[in-house]
Amino acid sequence: MTVLPQRRHVAVACLFLCCATLGDSVPDPRIRDTLMQLEASMQIGGNLVLSEAERRLGTYIDKLKGEELAQADFPPALHFFKAKPLIRKSPLYSLLQKMPKGGVLHVHDFSLVDVDWLVKNVTYRPYCYICFTYDQSMRFLFSSRLPKPLPQCSPWMLLESLRAKMENATSLDTSIMTNLTLFTEEEPEVVYPSQDVVWKRFEQSFQVIWGLVTYAPVFRDYYYRGLTQFYIDNVMYLELRALLPETYELDGSTHDRTWSLRTYRDITAQFVAEHPDFFGARVIFTVHRGLNESMMTQAVEEAMKMQRDFPEIMAGFDLVGHEDSGRSLWYFRQALSLPAERGVSLPFFFHAGETDLEGTEVDQNLLDALLFNTSRIGHGFALLRHPVAKKLSRERGVAVEVCPISNQVLKLVTDLRNHPAAILMLEGHPLVISPDDPAMFGATGLSYDFYEAFVGFGGHSSHIGTLKELAMNSIRYSSLSPRLQEQALALWQRQWEKFVSEILS
Amino acid sequence: MTVLPQRRHVAVACLFLCCATLGDSVPDPRIRDTLMQLEASMQIGGNLVLSEAERRLGTYIDKLKGEELAQADFPPALHFFKAKPLIRKSPLYSLLQKMPKGGVLHVHDFSLVDVDWLVKNVTYRPYCYICFTYDQSMRFLFSSRLPKPLPQCSPWMLLESLRAKMENATSLDTSIMTNLTLFTEEEPEVVYPSQDVVWKRFEQSFQVIWGLVTYAPVFRDYYYRGLTQFYIDNVMYLELRALLPETYELDGSTHDRTWSLRTYRDITAQFVAEHPDFFGARVIFTVHRGLNESMMTQAVEEAMKMQRDFPEIMAGFDLVGHEDSGRSLWYFRQALSLPAERGVSLPFFFHAGETDLEGTEVDQNLLDALLFNTSRIGHGFALLRHPVAKKLSRERGVAVEVCPISNQVLKLVTDLRNHPAAILMLEGHPLVISPDDPAMFGATGLSYDFYEAFVGFGGHSSHIGTLKELAMNSIRYSSLSPRLQEQALALWQRQWEKFVSEILS
Repeated sequence: MTVLPQRRHVAVACLFLCCATLGDSVPDPRIRDTLMQLEASMQIGGNLVLSEAERRLGTYIDKLKGEELAQADFPPALHFFKAKPLIRKSPLYSLLQKMPKGGVLHVHDFSLVDVDWLVKNVTYRPYCYICFTYDQSMRFLFSSRLPKPLPQCSPWMLLESLRAKMENATSLDTSIMTNLTLFTEEEPEVVYPSQDVVWKRFEQSFQVIWGLVTYAPVFRDYYYRGLTQFYIDNVMYLELRALLPETYELDGSTHDRTWSLRTYRDITAQFVAEHPDFFGARVIFTVHRGLNESMMTQAVEEAMKMQRDFPEIMAGFDLVGHEDSGRSLWYFRQALSLPAERGVSLPFFFHAGETDLEGTEVDQNLLDALLFNTSRIGHGFALLRHPVAKKLSRERGVAVEVCPISNQVLKLVTDLRNHPAAILMLEGHPLVISPDDPAMFGATGLSYDFYEAFVGFGGHSSHIGTLKELAMNSIRYSSLSPRLQEQALALWQRQWEKFVSEILS
Repeated sequence: MTVLPQRRHVAVACLFLCCATLGDSVPDPRIRDTLMQLEASMQIGGNLVLSEAERRLGTYIDKLKGEELAQADFPPALHFFKAKPLIRKSPLYSLLQKMPKGGVLHVHDFSLVDVDWLVKNVTYRPYCYICFTYDQSMRFLFSSRLPKPLPQCSPWMLLESLRAKMENATSLDTSIMTNLTLFTEEEPEVVYPSQDVVWKRFEQSFQVIWGLVTYAPVFRDYYYRGLTQFYIDNVMYLELRALLPETYELDGSTHDRTWSLRTYRDITAQFVAEHPDFFGARVIFTVHRGLNESMMTQAVEEAMKMQRDFPEIMAGFDLVGHEDSGRSLWYFRQALSLPAERGVSLPFFFHAGETDLEGTEVDQNLLDALLFNTSRIGHGFALLRHPVAKKLSRERGVAVEVCPISNQVLKLVTDLRNHPAAILMLEGHPLVISPDDPAMFGATGLSYDFYEAFVGFGGHSSHIGTLKELAMNSIRYSSLSPRLQEQALALWQRQWEKFVSEILS
């Protein structure tokens, strides 16, 4: 099997001792070279031993990256909504699409699939009702009869009839699409002037999507299509942050949370059977950090039960929603301590440090996530500002799920070259690249985020080793058991070798 | 004497071992508190033991900072040219002006004094000639007779006669002022759209100033006035990056480099005699990194000679100019190795890492500065991107001279909250705050940069301990001998205690 890279801590320590004794003499070019190599070896992928073929592909990739870096309109410096058409044209992006990227460890259940499909397929299904809210948004519901009106909303209208009455249904479809995603062709800085505004629109879009994707037949199709989109983007494994909602049928009858979980399990199995080079998917059950304490306790109880009953598909538990305005992990400490108190396993995968509110209560989430023994850190945007948390994360191999486009669209960083993960990558911190909510940002799959990380954070320093280690990290830091990790890595390795030889030929 | 703060490396190591054994149990609030305190203690000033009076002052400072942080137009997020009037109105800025800040370790010889004084005093002296260059700039020369014309320039005109002929001399004075500084009331992003544009204007302004400040009588007055401005701003010591130019008299006769050095020595002595609470100044001889190799060798030879002949005033040697377009330290390795080869002492204080060209040749300057045993690092903006250089800098106590406003005006960072030194401060990296070229940026003294560092980098985390340690660092990392450092620190301590009690009363 493939040997995972090891870091040279001991070598580093020795070299510092050597250098400390240098001082007043003329610099020795050999020591200079050694230190430069040491620094290069510390970064992600800097320590991998590459094959002859990989080195040749690396030269080609360096050339492509050089062309990206020489562009006047450098995509990682632009807002993704403006960068997207430039990235799509880039030969490096095409190569990254073809590259087997391993797993996606941070992606949310209802932002997997292009909203285009939701509009053109889902909203054209029969029995789809629409209503317009008083705050210029909309809601959807599938029903075999006219549903009861919602508060603060127009009466429900059958979308099919509404479209039939309109001269031009395209403008309605465009309006629906706009409501389902943050993506816009207008000036993003003007449409979303602040974090509060963009987060409000972000959470509102999920409310618009809700009635579409919790309709049981759509729920199934949506997930299948999500797997397909990642599969096409050469992702072989998913860990899905999932709200596991109650779903409904046309007659108004409902399915509970475990139905959603079983559906994920069964459709994953079907998809793997149909696509043997896809490895699978697991679910991280998520609840909103706006819950009160007793609701959180109940959610943790449910999570422990599902973890016991569905150990293959259930990976663990997490909280979602805007950290800055939500409740902190420490606020929920009693509920979150339940599994440990009872000696029950419930792995945590906490979002933490998705904030620039340095020094506040919310900013303690990073340390608290680690104290609650989180398996990974979602985002960790603020990690550099917490040297103790950073050190704990590194020493304990708690990987950071870095989501470049998400952090830019949700206004934590403007120019992606300044993303703190640029430093983490150079330090060889355990991390993976993830898309968070691709459909919400107008992205698809993982390749756009890989592009931003490789070209934007990576700059001149990143190379084929970076790409290879990032892909391997997504297996190594997954929730899979060591035995399954070994299988996944072997599968990935075969795909990787095929990719290297195909690109070279 | 005052005990300088020590960092708790051993405590940190132990705690990590403790925590590593934690894991599946419920988090212990005492360990949480300890880790939070540990993190707080790591930052600059986090480990100082404060007196009762200092703690009371600290509470007042926290309140003032809270008011700054609550502002809609948050000054550190704005370009300094726009932030300046807001900062001037801030009660926290007034307090920082009064605070004894210790030494300024990174400031350049010809950007010490408000350009207002150059225009209203210097250009109104007799025998001041002006000419207008073909590229819309100007040059000055004092002369007892009409000087020979410069190439690419209008004929010389006596400024006094020109002013007499003009209906409104104010517009000429405004135009002169604009040429002497980067500061503008227009939109800075429009006037200076790129690093290349702003650096070109920056270096051009020094050419405009040149003829004024190298006139021997002005050279003396300018330095005296520079000391006065820093003294008024409660700075007690300077290390001046100085080009030590040839100076001239009205009759065209000239003085050599050692005349400039002796002038600095004598005027410093005079100033200290007149102001016993000012500690002194030393000179770091600087040459432009655009020199060729043989000129650099000659400059290093001269520097060694001056270091031998004027050991009290000479602190060492450095290169200046735009790193990105200039030659690298490694390019000059033979010249820079001369002192070590000859066993002669010539301390280096290299500018390094004042760049965002990550991964290029220029970006190796940081490591090379350390290999050449630099005493401090000028700027070190790129240090986070070089984990090996960062570790060497920390372990060997090679302090970084952080220049917030300079880095913003010269376009390495937009929002000062994102300056990499924010991280270095939280990690307790050895560093000092410096103004670089205050007059060029429309600043005066050190207090504006202290404001940006304390409020911008510091955010919610910084406190009175931060301010105290930053001031003490400026003595601890100075070029002064241990004996003189002790004296300077004792003098600073008396000023500090007076400041604390005066503000409290």
